[in-house]
Amino acid sequence: MRLSLMTWPEVEAHLRQSTAVIVPIGSTEQHGPTGLIGTDALCAEAVANGVGEACGAVVTPVLSIGMAVHHLGFPGTLTLRPSTLMAVLRDVVDALAGHGFRRMLFVNGHGGNVSTLRAAFMEIHAARAQAQLAELRLDTLNWWQGRRVRELCHSLYGDKEGMHATASELALTWALFPERADRRVLDPQVAPTHRFQGPDDFRRNHPDGRMGSDPSLATAEDGQRLLDLAVADVADALRRFSEA
Amino acid sequence: MRLSLMTWPEVEAHLRQSTAVIVPIGSTEQHGPTGLIGTDALCAEAVANGVGEACGAVVTPVLSIGMAVHHLGFPGTLTLRPSTLMAVLRDVVDALAGHGFRRMLFVNGHGGNVSTLRAAFMEIHAARAQAQLAELRLDTLNWWQGRRVRELCHSLYGDKEGMHATASELALTWALFPERADRRVLDPQVAPTHRFQGPDDFRRNHPDGRMGSDPSLATAEDGQRLLDLAVADVADALRRFSEA
Amino acid sequence: MRLSLMTWPEVEAHLRQSTAVIVPIGSTEQHGPTGLIGTDALCAEAVANGVGEACGAVVTPVLSIGMAVHHLGFPGTLTLRPSTLMAVLRDVVDALAGHGFRRMLFVNGHGGNVSTLRAAFMEIHAARAQAQLAELRLDTLNWWQGRRVRELCHSLYGDKEGMHATASELALTWALFPERADRRVLDPQVAPTHRFQGPDDFRRNHPDGRMGSDPSLATAEDGQRLLDLAVADVADALRRFSEA
Amino acid sequence: MRLSLMTWPEVEAHLRQSTAVIVPIGSTEQHGPTGLIGTDALCAEAVANGVGEACGAVVTPVLSIGMAVHHLGFPGTLTLRPSTLMAVLRDVVDALAGHGFRRMLFVNGHGGNVSTLRAAFMEIHAARAQAQLAELRLDTLNWWQGRRVRELCHSLYGDKEGMHATASELALTWALFPERADRRVLDPQVAPTHRFQGPDDFRRNHPDGRMGSDPSLATAEDGQRLLDLAVADVADALRRFSEA
Amino acid sequence: MRLSLMTWPEVEAHLRQSTAVIVPIGSTEQHGPTGLIGTDALCAEAVANGVGEACGAVVTPVLSIGMAVHHLGFPGTLTLRPSTLMAVLRDVVDALAGHGFRRMLFVNGHGGNVSTLRAAFMEIHAARAQAQLAELRLDTLNWWQGRRVRELCHSLYGDKEGMHATASELALTWALFPERADRRVLDPQVAPTHRFQGPDDFRRNHPDGRMGSDPSLATAEDGQRLLDLAVADVADALRRFSEA
Amino acid sequence: MRLSLMTWPEVEAHLRQSTAVIVPIGSTEQHGPTGLIGTDALCAEAVANGVGEACGAVVTPVLSIGMAVHHLGFPGTLTLRPSTLMAVLRDVVDALAGHGFRRMLFVNGHGGNVSTLRAAFMEIHAARAQAQLAELRLDTLNWWQGRRVRELCHSLYGDKEGMHATASELALTWALFPERADRRVLDPQVAPTHRFQGPDDFRRNHPDGRMGSDPSLATAEDGQRLLDLAVADVADALRRFSEA
Repeated sequence: MRLSLMTWPEVEAHLRQSTAVIVPIGSTEQHGPTGLIGTDALCAEAVANGVGEACGAVVTPVLSIGMAVHHLGFPGTLTLRPSTLMAVLRDVVDALAGHGFRRMLFVNGHGGNVSTLRAAFMEIHAARAQAQLAELRLDTLNWWQGRRVRELCHSLYGDKEGMHATASELALTWALFPERADRRVLDPQVAPTHRFQGPDDFRRNHPDGRMGSDPSLATAEDGQRLLDLAVADVADALRRFSEA
Repeated sequence: MRLSLMTWPEVEAHLRQSTAVIVPIGSTEQHGPTGLIGTDALCAEAVANGVGEACGAVVTPVLSIGMAVHHLGFPGTLTLRPSTLMAVLRDVVDALAGHGFRRMLFVNGHGGNVSTLRAAFMEIHAARAQAQLAELRLDTLNWWQGRRVRELCHSLYGDKEGMHATASELALTWALFPERADRRVLDPQVAPTHRFQGPDDFRRNHPDGRMGSDPSLATAEDGQRLLDLAVADVADALRRFSEA
Repeated sequence: MRLSLMTWPEVEAHLRQSTAVIVPIGSTEQHGPTGLIGTDALCAEAVANGVGEACGAVVTPVLSIGMAVHHLGFPGTLTLRPSTLMAVLRDVVDALAGHGFRRMLFVNGHGGNVSTLRAAFMEIHAARAQAQLAELRLDTLNWWQGRRVRELCHSLYGDKEGMHATASELALTWALFPERADRRVLDPQVAPTHRFQGPDDFRRNHPDGRMGSDPSLATAEDGQRLLDLAVADVADALRRFSEA
Repeated sequence: MRLSLMTWPEVEAHLRQSTAVIVPIGSTEQHGPTGLIGTDALCAEAVANGVGEACGAVVTPVLSIGMAVHHLGFPGTLTLRPSTLMAVLRDVVDALAGHGFRRMLFVNGHGGNVSTLRAAFMEIHAARAQAQLAELRLDTLNWWQGRRVRELCHSLYGDKEGMHATASELALTWALFPERADRRVLDPQVAPTHRFQGPDDFRRNHPDGRMGSDPSLATAEDGQRLLDLAVADVADALRRFSEA
Repeated sequence: MRLSLMTWPEVEAHLRQSTAVIVPIGSTEQHGPTGLIGTDALCAEAVANGVGEACGAVVTPVLSIGMAVHHLGFPGTLTLRPSTLMAVLRDVVDALAGHGFRRMLFVNGHGGNVSTLRAAFMEIHAARAQAQLAELRLDTLNWWQGRRVRELCHSLYGDKEGMHATASELALTWALFPERADRRVLDPQVAPTHRFQGPDDFRRNHPDGRMGSDPSLATAEDGQRLLDLAVADVADALRRFSEA
Repeated sequence: MRLSLMTWPEVEAHLRQSTAVIVPIGSTEQHGPTGLIGTDALCAEAVANGVGEACGAVVTPVLSIGMAVHHLGFPGTLTLRPSTLMAVLRDVVDALAGHGFRRMLFVNGHGGNVSTLRAAFMEIHAARAQAQLAELRLDTLNWWQGRRVRELCHSLYGDKEGMHATASELALTWALFPERADRRVLDPQVAPTHRFQGPDDFRRNHPDGRMGSDPSLATAEDGQRLLDLAVADVADALRRFSEA
């Protein structure tokens, strides 16, 4: 259930049954020459909403802009500084907690968000403990880290999945927006992979924005399969999280 | 053109023609017993994307969570503190400016955002002037403030439009999600209107969340007309803004 | 009663009778070639102190430096960044609330402060609600927005009142400091008015600092009349605010 | 010359001759049963304006609210947190520096401000060095620390001058506002002096707010002498500072 | 070479040969009933100083207090909030960069620091890119993550190494402070392991502070072997980092 | 007792007997051509640990990096901005207070830290009072300010002790690290002393980093005497502080 499409009395009623909530978080950042800038937000949102329907869980609007400082060398990338994202997460968590939510699972679409998410969780725990506010359970899960998704990725793309602008995430967005699918083969077909620092360094070593991937392997059909499996994986994780 | 659905080379090409960009901003907050919590974000996003198509302008993802502190007394409301929203706006503006965008029009769906938007613009101007970064033009426009929308609202709802959870905004969301339309008559039919302070004060004086409105007047059909007129109004404003 | 001229036992005694307090806030910024840099602070202070005497209300020292980023292109302008002004307002409000004041009316002398004031009020409400501190009533009023002042301005200056470095505010300061009156006619007699962005943009379009005004219309005598009416208007507003 | 009473072209002209500026800073805090809450701001302002006239120096509006956390136990005390005051000082210094001022002398009326002033100066130096902005000379001087004032205080009050709500500062305010003079003898005549921590600790050990002082020794006549000598002392210091 | 034991001309001379620097970072937090509160800082410092000697690299003082919010339920634990630690890291990096250091390797003794370190690196890259300051290479390495240490740990402790208050880290501190070795067997011998949230949650599930470990397996002798191997592992990593 | 070498149950037991704790704080900054960059931290740590042993008091790890903005012109100097150091102090104090410590004495090795320490104490008192947390006693003491140390310094160095890179502090570090003693005579033998501003100004007027000192007078033997006397002086102060 998308929070955006609920009324406040519906939320009030729901809270009598469950205090868990899903917060999708993505990023708005370059995804190579053929990938959509919104990839990470679109994937997180789609998976989270799917889980919400499957489990009857409340899903907040996606946090579309994440921590993408290292992608700023490519036009269109948006980012929050880590400190800003931490403030956003604190405010969202505090608002949800004020209504009675106690378990918040962040379904994440961007690896680059994870450190900031984890730092934010501890910032929040510290502040709430000092102020003697209710304890919360906060966790984050990348949509692709469940067993079923990983197995399908491995069978479909093997070593060519890569690290950024991957075949799997582009496939998922093309399942959502098939008219935007662009399966052209890039040069080199598999992009290089380097450790990276800030935006200039990232672009210098990854000149078209991809990192280790061959997105020409992606298809909208496989994207739909990945989406379905991600929903199943994350739904399982949500059930465990809700009971822990 | 939704930035989320573009690739970075497309953004790079677009920047050679225009340095204007639209940023929709809304809120995720209670809208009375029959209005959707996402109303302000959904409306801003729909209008902004419509303008983007009409004018060939780039539209960023909607900033779904705005400044809704006074609505925190109702379950489901999310908010950023003004200081957090200012940091978000600074980061988004800095990222866009780094790519070469110079004119940024915030299409707004929530009156409560305006003060923080204006404060943020000055915070940004101050910081950029001190750091000798490029000058920017920043402005904001509520989707309902154009002449055509106001005229239609007046003819449809007269004094019963109200201030919060208005017939016009609910109509617009029902045009987008007709299955969520809820035209039941509330009690009192027209909600009270009071000046307000923080969340407790707001709820005390506006017990069902509405402020001065009778949303039972809304229909999905009128919502579509409002949407079309809002796109036309804002598109005109964008053209003026792009040339100023 | 000026807080600065009271002793702490006098404040303690006063609090047994009223928990309302007036905080004048102005700005220290250019007011054209003939207007005083302190205009906005001087006016707010004079009106607030007059109201304090008329109503037996406590008046804090004027916050002389406001949000004047857009006037920084002219020598002598001081400003706080919006975020700094918000911190100042929070600290002042928290101190007053700690003593038992519950209603705080900010008598404002500078339109540019309003957005930041309103953002600050919500920041304060959010923080106090989270920390379960006492609820407060916070509001702001421009000294010139009452009915009587507006009517006199209109009859005296009509369309030539303008937006910045107006005849009315200069008149009021000249009533306070007649030796600083400078009634010379400027060129153009009525200054241009443009929307504005940061400091460079403001100065480019308003080369002598005025905005839409003809301050040569001002006289110290009219300034005294405006001051008296402003005190009356704001005193009425304070009474309503104290009872709301 | 009070900046508030100048026009911007006058400031522009003045900057061709001198880049020094005086910023008076005080506090709004309890000063015992007979002292004015505004004592520290009133004194700093009077001395600074006197120096401005004597030396032809520009004097900004007084920063009336300083760092008075430890006095919050007494009604009427206002304070900025140290971090807020540091932000205020940074903004004021940055604005002045943007106009070309390079030497800024803070004439201080409250010992409790000194640590925060010194911390702020280093914060400002660090930020400006990192941003490669022009170097500044920043210093602060308590109005009572010059040789002449100290000698007169010693001869008038000896050991009974004390640390807070002193005879000398009350005398100076009574020279400014003789109708507020209150020479009654307090009990004990000389207040106790203790090291102090936060507001509760301060009030516990200094129950009427004074610290080591006997303000019944003060007279308006001596206050005028102190004011004249303070102006002379600080004027000397300003000349040395302007040449250093 | 410990920076603390160098003079500034020695640093100046060193910078002509290398712009790499090691920053050890640990934590001051409970390490179970038998482990030292300083374990993480002591280990990081010892390894880093060993690497400094082995490689002729400059080593700053250890950052002794890290991110240990989740251990606050046990007396003696100190922590910085993530946002504070990020500010510390920014300041340290900026100072080092101002002197000409360009590659900074953080040798880490506490897994709980990693997210905040990574978030801080991106915060720093973002700020420096915006201010057009020199690019930096920033990385972090846990002292136990090299191949040789992992192999020895595995052979010595197998599954009983655990996650917190591990045999290996206690062994290392006992090599440094043999008089503090405490090899008593705890109950249960191997501590439980749970995912954790804030301080209350951590203590509830890990009542004596350990997580998955049996520190009675530790000996000072093995600790010395671990220290030597860690120095070798990290020295290798430093060489790669210095050339990357 | 060094907190780093204690276990958490030992701290828990200790808190039943005393709620006082010592926090050594120094700086990592240039100390002239012959002084160690770590001088201020090394001295504070040695004195504090000595007091801890003499009095059975808990001593936290030294805060090695202090406020040394004005020394940034010399390679190797590290600094925290005052605002960062204030955040560190707040976090450390809050953590200690959370465990039950109520009296915290900061044994300081760097005069430049004092203003920031005092500002931080008031920031902490303000925040804790607002949040109704337990009252604390916070104080700071420079290790060299006791009677015995001052007398020995005076007899050993007279006027040549100076203000920075003094004979006494270098002597103390050479007692700790005799192999680093460098008694060469510098030119000029006694360094100049000037008021200072930021880093460029400091270096301009103090070209080798010393301020007013002749460190060639220092010997390791005298350093040991100074250390012993400093421990005695500070131990006395701690006893008074623990009882106040």
